[in-house]
Amino acid sequence: MRLAELSEQSGVSIATIKYYLRERLLPPGRRVTATQAEYDEAHLRRLRLVRAMIQVGGMPVATAREVLAHIDDESLGLTMRLGAATWALPQPPEAPLDDAASTDARQEVERLLEELGWDSVREVGDLSPVYRSLVTSLATLNGLGYPVSAAELLPYARQMEQIAIHDMDQLEDLPEGTEQVEAAVAAQVLYDPLLLTLRRLALEAETTRRYGMA
Amino acid sequence: MRLAELSEQSGVSIATIKYYLRERLLPPGRRVTATQAEYDEAHLRRLRLVRAMIQVGGMPVATAREVLAHIDDESLGLTMRLGAATWALPQPPEAPLDDAASTDARQEVERLLEELGWDSVREVGDLSPVYRSLVTSLATLNGLGYPVSAAELLPYARQMEQIAIHDMDQLEDLPEGTEQVEAAVAAQVLYDPLLLTLRRLALEAETTRRYGMA
Repeated sequence: MRLAELSEQSGVSIATIKYYLRERLLPPGRRVTATQAEYDEAHLRRLRLVRAMIQVGGMPVATAREVLAHIDDESLGLTMRLGAATWALPQPPEAPLDDAASTDARQEVERLLEELGWDSVREVGDLSPVYRSLVTSLATLNGLGYPVSAAELLPYARQMEQIAIHDMDQLEDLPEGTEQVEAAVAAQVLYDPLLLTLRRLALEAETTRRYGMA
Repeated sequence: MRLAELSEQSGVSIATIKYYLRERLLPPGRRVTATQAEYDEAHLRRLRLVRAMIQVGGMPVATAREVLAHIDDESLGLTMRLGAATWALPQPPEAPLDDAASTDARQEVERLLEELGWDSVREVGDLSPVYRSLVTSLATLNGLGYPVSAAELLPYARQMEQIAIHDMDQLEDLPEGTEQVEAAVAAQVLYDPLLLTLRRLALEAETTRRYGMA
């Protein structure tokens, strides 16, 4: 399809598409004449993902470009490609890990991962910004007077495990490779806010079930 | 306890506590002399909650004050107090609800709530900013080329229902009233970022389990 049709199909303006092309968030089309290029379904998919990252995920262009670079790294297997892309997603700011609060927090994280049997996550440990983010969050909560133990985290982690299993099941129907990694990143970015909204609605429903409307 | 001890126990500086007192985020202590006031455990609890809302929840002072006003409204039953406090928490911006995308999104939300049996949430409907937020999110995703159906949302909502049941179970051990509402708001604010971090770690663990480390 031509640029105009890509714009129509995606609902993204031609000016914005040209901006994404300049910023290398979208690969160039296949040149057919000196002034025209041809785009395909892969461009449309990529365009949607870029918009999701920027508009829903609130990511800066540089972050989105880094995530895409990992998605496109065909030298890696699915685990590493998806892992690298996920690690490049924005994380809460990290606190230093060597103070006493962080040591305690790290112990709780280790206990939690052992209980869950998430051995691969333990092996990767500090290399993962997501692991570091969990340690930092627990240290922060501890400092705020809300200590959270591994035992308290466990039920939440179990629910998230069910969601991860469901997310991975969905991916199995897609063509292997880039399309799977794109879909996994989109699922992370798009469902994060939905999950928190559903959590609040669930609490409304459960409170009313237990205590009535008053 | 005196101001200095409240500061020590909470880890919040005296200057910050005085600021919270001026901003009416913290009720005044019981005056014992012309220059000194006495604070109790309720002040300490409230101080922790205020810090959680501002530091973890990133809330403006005015929003935190509104949430607290609902927490303290003893004229309401638990459901309404908690509901009002939760509704005052920051929400994603709302889009207008009368365009075609929002009509479709609303139908999917209604289908989802019917399937879940969350009748109280359906009854409240548009009055709830959380309900409106879900409609808006779905309309936005639809506009981005990621239509999400009630059937696709259902497994996520079921997991969040399990978390809400767990959260409410925890509350039952607390003294009825203000302390329960405070704890429920704290659980919302503090566990939201933890849940998203745990979701990412769970995906790392599950990807490795299925596809190995490569």
